Amino acid sequence: MPRDRSARSTRRLRRSQAAVSQLPWRWLENPYEPISVLSDEQVEAVHLASLAVLRDTGMDFLHPDAIAILEAAGAQVEEAGPRVRFDPAMVEELIRTIPGTIEVRARNPDHNVVIGGKHVNFLAVGSAPNASDLDAGRRPGNFADFSNLVKLTQHFNVVSMHSGYPVEPIDIDPGIRHLHALAEIVRQSDKVFHAYSLGRERILDALEIVRIARGIPMDQLVDEPSMHTIINTSSPLRLDGPMIEGMIEMIRHGQVVVLTPFTLSGAMAPATIAGALVQQNAEALAGLAFSQLIRTGAQVVYGGFTSNVDMRSGSPAFGTPEYTRAAMAGGQMARRYGVPYRSSNATAANAVDAQAAYESQMSLWGAVMGGANFVMHGAGWMEGGLVASFEKFIIDIEMLQMMSEFLQPLPFSDEDLGVDAIADVGPGGHFFGTQHTLDRYENAFYPPIVSDWQNFEAWEMSGARDASFRANSIWKRVIDEFEPPPLPDDRAAELSDFIGRRIAEGGVAAN
Amino acid sequence: MPRDRSARSTRRLRRSQAAVSQLPWRWLENPYEPISVLSDEQVEAVHLASLAVLRDTGMDFLHPDAIAILEAAGAQVEEAGPRVRFDPAMVEELIRTIPGTIEVRARNPDHNVVIGGKHVNFLAVGSAPNASDLDAGRRPGNFADFSNLVKLTQHFNVVSMHSGYPVEPIDIDPGIRHLHALAEIVRQSDKVFHAYSLGRERILDALEIVRIARGIPMDQLVDEPSMHTIINTSSPLRLDGPMIEGMIEMIRHGQVVVLTPFTLSGAMAPATIAGALVQQNAEALAGLAFSQLIRTGAQVVYGGFTSNVDMRSGSPAFGTPEYTRAAMAGGQMARRYGVPYRSSNATAANAVDAQAAYESQMSLWGAVMGGANFVMHGAGWMEGGLVASFEKFIIDIEMLQMMSEFLQPLPFSDEDLGVDAIADVGPGGHFFGTQHTLDRYENAFYPPIVSDWQNFEAWEMSGARDASFRANSIWKRVIDEFEPPPLPDDRAAELSDFIGRRIAEGGVAAN
Repeated sequence: MPRDRSARSTRRLRRSQAAVSQLPWRWLENPYEPISVLSDEQVEAVHLASLAVLRDTGMDFLHPDAIAILEAAGAQVEEAGPRVRFDPAMVEELIRTIPGTIEVRARNPDHNVVIGGKHVNFLAVGSAPNASDLDAGRRPGNFADFSNLVKLTQHFNVVSMHSGYPVEPIDIDPGIRHLHALAEIVRQSDKVFHAYSLGRERILDALEIVRIARGIPMDQLVDEPSMHTIINTSSPLRLDGPMIEGMIEMIRHGQVVVLTPFTLSGAMAPATIAGALVQQNAEALAGLAFSQLIRTGAQVVYGGFTSNVDMRSGSPAFGTPEYTRAAMAGGQMARRYGVPYRSSNATAANAVDAQAAYESQMSLWGAVMGGANFVMHGAGWMEGGLVASFEKFIIDIEMLQMMSEFLQPLPFSDEDLGVDAIADVGPGGHFFGTQHTLDRYENAFYPPIVSDWQNFEAWEMSGARDASFRANSIWKRVIDEFEPPPLPDDRAAELSDFIGRRIAEGGVAAN
Repeated sequence: MPRDRSARSTRRLRRSQAAVSQLPWRWLENPYEPISVLSDEQVEAVHLASLAVLRDTGMDFLHPDAIAILEAAGAQVEEAGPRVRFDPAMVEELIRTIPGTIEVRARNPDHNVVIGGKHVNFLAVGSAPNASDLDAGRRPGNFADFSNLVKLTQHFNVVSMHSGYPVEPIDIDPGIRHLHALAEIVRQSDKVFHAYSLGRERILDALEIVRIARGIPMDQLVDEPSMHTIINTSSPLRLDGPMIEGMIEMIRHGQVVVLTPFTLSGAMAPATIAGALVQQNAEALAGLAFSQLIRTGAQVVYGGFTSNVDMRSGSPAFGTPEYTRAAMAGGQMARRYGVPYRSSNATAANAVDAQAAYESQMSLWGAVMGGANFVMHGAGWMEGGLVASFEKFIIDIEMLQMMSEFLQPLPFSDEDLGVDAIADVGPGGHFFGTQHTLDRYENAFYPPIVSDWQNFEAWEMSGARDASFRANSIWKRVIDEFEPPPLPDDRAAELSDFIGRRIAEGGVAAN
């Protein structure tokens, strides 16, 4: 994959860094062994139990096209559907053809990504119905907030892709929302983005938009994954019609499908993490097997989103110790199948406070040490997904950058080991002004963007602002200074023409 | 070791749970493979480089007793000291006799602990000069705050030991401070505590206090480690006189010594993490070797506290990505020597905000997945150690409890796998009211103490309190409802007599 940085994009990166300092764009790879919370026997037990669920209970596929495909392949369809039962051997055979890594093209080749193997990608918040910031408080999602969150996603190098819409722009009619929203993403960003599988038409529109953005013909797009969609099962054990339609079109056009059961233990899944994992795995396997019937070698990702509810209230919880272990166990299952793995950065907190940070950390450690390749909702997600918070976005960027640095190898040359430097300073000395230190002054350590390391007196004199208030001034500066990445005039014109025409046609009828 | 729970202590635990719910007391063991940030070759490189430092540069031992011991053992002493150089073979030979695990006795046998192997112990904050809470703000440490923090330490089961004084009670004269402080710990708590190695006399007083508390003769105490002391090197490469005196007395009396270099990369250690690790390891090895000359088989712990400074300001930073990797690397070194490992829960934050939580999380994951057996400053540490915060204490308890649950095995019986429960509910159903869920209603998931999982509207109606304000009401409730654990009358009287006599004698003269 080309890694050349054009003079143009180098200029752009340099300018962004002048605004708010940050780590450079890089492909992140996890050098560590993932944490195994399940024994090998337990991995097999989850595997076998989930095959038993698919054989005996089955899964509902709520679309005739899926039923037809599955029946033709030999799955056991109950009357005319929607219940489908699977022979375990058929599932095991089908998932063998799923590729272990996926290269995904951005319209700026510098922002291409790889999903799978040891690669780690952090994505922005997706699909929040509300937005929030410290100045204006919490409000229903709108296009202005949508656009600003897209700009933050574009700005920060540690976020390699967009999720769905960072916030739902509900001030735009649902029939034409995807047109305005995706056009805005293309105009403000050159990173890989997502299309919602809400029926066939929206996916076809999204495919045309990403084709225009990349400036390539459709047959090339089919060979070059350039967009992803999240397929959520309607747990337990159902796949909805609009999701199925989107999934079929995405796969037929060679694009990336991330299959994610949303198995909340105690609500849509058993009140045990083992049971929720069995159900997650059954739903994921059914979707993965189905994907290979649409097209052998379809590029799909195993998604895990098992968490638990508060048993007293039924409220969903995230970043709990159960969540962390489930995220790691999900990674073990995905690796058993050799399929890329998706996890999330999740919290149920209502404020950008210590809870928001520790729940997100528990999620992030679960994702990263669970071997996730694709970490949804990496920046900005709050309230269990009900809010995209501008301040949480910045706090998350700090946490993601710290995680990104954690994944870097320690410099370890003889010079770095510093035996001579230690000898030069000797007992009781100090290293502040030594040559060894001066040589490393600029880049010795990770420079934070939110963390304040002043002493208490200096911090108090500078306003005693907590991390959320410091984050507030950072996102505003980034948006103030934001400049969209260049989009060639011909593509911009073609995009406007297409969007204009589709809007004039009325977009997609209500469904 | 006896694990019987007397009827008395069961009653006490039940009462505490009525106050603020919490996890039960338990010995924590880490079931996971530690994360290796160094390759085997890099571990050897640190080992060899640190031996070279001890051979060529040497370390200053600022006490004639240490010099005499080291010289007699064949170390190379420069004139009359303080510089001591070590033959690498001598160091390697000496540290072989360090035990891999240490059983430490509390005055309540239910609160005995094990340090080493896979055991994980979280300790309270130690040695902060200031205290802070949301009601009264930040103030110099005093005896009332000291006592309240001791009560919090006693109350929460996830904290298995006291560190030093949680906050320095500076309203008590330094000559008698240790007498009042340790007596208060014995009166309010039955957990293992710490004595400061500030010269010989204070350690002898502490030994008498712990002997009285346990109600045993001194020769039994010498056979039963019941107290610990932290020995910090004065980095680079110095061990101070008062520390040496305390270390010698603690070891001669069979008590636990935790040797911790404080190697801030860029200040008291090289501006590379590799170099800071070499220096940490050199200082630790020198102390560990010295400990075995005081008494073969002395129970010592390898402490790691490598972090980095902000290169622009010189401010110390904690919970950075450098800190996390150093904590894990330190664990690799300790395991290479088969010695128990100490790490910390550290943050430089000035407020109980997102920064405090994410830096602490980065520290805790470094400690736990670095294989630490002894995690200092587990609850309440802020501002790089300058403050013991009551609210941070509670936030930390939540984070420690979550980590404690993360270390528990997932229930994994056939029933837990839930194939039948999934079949009973079927596609599109829900698990709220099923028998499988009802059977697990009480104990299915970790119940948080600070985390608020209400939806935004309910959270707002209940006052929109962030995590720090919720923590504020929790610590006050615990202290309001606190009852000290029973101390037999004869021991209480003996303790008062001893303290009274030593205070009348004037305590320890200023040094």
